[in-house]
Amino acid sequence: MPLIVSRMPEGKFIYHGGGKIGKMNNVYVHGYDQRENIRLQDQASTLVDLLHFDTSFPAESRVLETGCGVGAQTVTLAKKSPNAYITSIDISETSVAEAKQRIESEGISNVHFQQGNIFDLSFEPESFDHVFVCFVLEHLPNPIEALSVLKKFIRPGGTITVIEGDHGSTYFYPDSEAAHKAIQCQVELQRRAGGNAMIGRELYPLMTKAGYEMVRVSPRMVYVDSSKPQLVEGFTKKTFTAMIEGIRAAAIEAGIIDQITFDKGIKDLYRAAEYDGVFCYTFFKAVAEKR
Amino acid sequence: MPLIVSRMPEGKFIYHGGGKIGKMNNVYVHGYDQRENIRLQDQASTLVDLLHFDTSFPAESRVLETGCGVGAQTVTLAKKSPNAYITSIDISETSVAEAKQRIESEGISNVHFQQGNIFDLSFEPESFDHVFVCFVLEHLPNPIEALSVLKKFIRPGGTITVIEGDHGSTYFYPDSEAAHKAIQCQVELQRRAGGNAMIGRELYPLMTKAGYEMVRVSPRMVYVDSSKPQLVEGFTKKTFTAMIEGIRAAAIEAGIIDQITFDKGIKDLYRAAEYDGVFCYTFFKAVAEKR
Repeated sequence: MPLIVSRMPEGKFIYHGGGKIGKMNNVYVHGYDQRENIRLQDQASTLVDLLHFDTSFPAESRVLETGCGVGAQTVTLAKKSPNAYITSIDISETSVAEAKQRIESEGISNVHFQQGNIFDLSFEPESFDHVFVCFVLEHLPNPIEALSVLKKFIRPGGTITVIEGDHGSTYFYPDSEAAHKAIQCQVELQRRAGGNAMIGRELYPLMTKAGYEMVRVSPRMVYVDSSKPQLVEGFTKKTFTAMIEGIRAAAIEAGIIDQITFDKGIKDLYRAAEYDGVFCYTFFKAVAEKR
Repeated sequence: MPLIVSRMPEGKFIYHGGGKIGKMNNVYVHGYDQRENIRLQDQASTLVDLLHFDTSFPAESRVLETGCGVGAQTVTLAKKSPNAYITSIDISETSVAEAKQRIESEGISNVHFQQGNIFDLSFEPESFDHVFVCFVLEHLPNPIEALSVLKKFIRPGGTITVIEGDHGSTYFYPDSEAAHKAIQCQVELQRRAGGNAMIGRELYPLMTKAGYEMVRVSPRMVYVDSSKPQLVEGFTKKTFTAMIEGIRAAAIEAGIIDQITFDKGIKDLYRAAEYDGVFCYTFFKAVAEKR
């Protein structure tokens, strides 16, 4: 979430922080405005068990978190590995400052923050035991290159953990074509910004092609029906549907969808959060080794 | 898989066994020819852990399996609950005979077979502790009615277990519009036959509406990449893609798709079974109580 990436004419990657959702030099990204921050926080707190029950690094191990954003995952990372030394970087100074404040307010002391660009990091080679990348590759035009670059900083025998969503994994009851179209707007906007909102399913080939070994992918499906009111609120409504709602202006302005279809799509997503509705979404978590 | 259901003009359900896949009085069903039997067997043997690791009924309990077909699930059911008394029914005499032979050849003795129609069963009310329904509701025009009817035969405090797939849960890498269209043919043919190939996601509302309590749905996602060669062969190719391939003639004849698109779709599904491909499909398992 914390990166916007564009490709320069000469093929060089540049990274720059974003502003509010909407018109942003024809580039869309989620993760920056306040409402997005709340959404990310909701997301992390309702999904934390699902995504992170097995995110734990040994005492004394050196962990690099790339693309920490405002620290939504950093808090969990630090709490789950209280005796690891965590270095969290993000391209955006503002995000890093916010993440730092957040971590301090939680009384966590094992995280060191630093502004930095994945493609231009100043760490010594092989200086980390583990790398953690969550909701970052979805925004990169060349995720394999990013994974390859990060490999240099992992010691032989160390691991990389990657977590990504996949908007193409979304389905619900009652089914709705308009809702699928509204979701597709996000996929299309992210694609135009150089990203891939359906990257989750691709983690195995991406990591294999980047030269990692023993790639093990574990899908984390969020299944929500009304027997789980916390997930209905926390995930179906406040995380997923709120995220799609957030791109309304950008999607309509970009001419990807008409207002009526988009609004019906959102209505239908809320319909799937009613007493007899069901909502499904899958995240993918991959762990691999550097040999 | 073992049932074909049509709705008579007066609204009464009738059940009849099927023949080969293809032209069958404008009705399509999967589950009957020899190739399908092999496929169902492959399916059961590769998916057995995923679907049935928690399918176990206590000693002495009376279990009713409805729609046992050729016994693909019955073998597992009996082995996982060796001291339960299992009664397995199917509408098709031929299937029942085949299932019986299969169970006998496995040396299993705790299953009693009987030809029977879900909507016209001769059992005493409340004469079973547990009911087991696997890949049956997807073929019924009114699954809620079937679930309600079965409830009568469960003692208060007894349970029902329902397992169904959901073809709308299918996605893969590389993505392919043609492959999605080919899959959609199966959904459409099954719909025309009165069924619903996307019923998995609906289990919670269906069972709740049928009057069951404590409905707990557990998605069982099959995630396949080339690190799992057994699933690539056993599921992506021999179960799922083989099933879609099996409806080629019926789909083209019904005018749902053209030959070129269908064949490209199948090719693309096999592409997802290559070394850098990924395939995802989700079954849903629900357990509920009769109060």
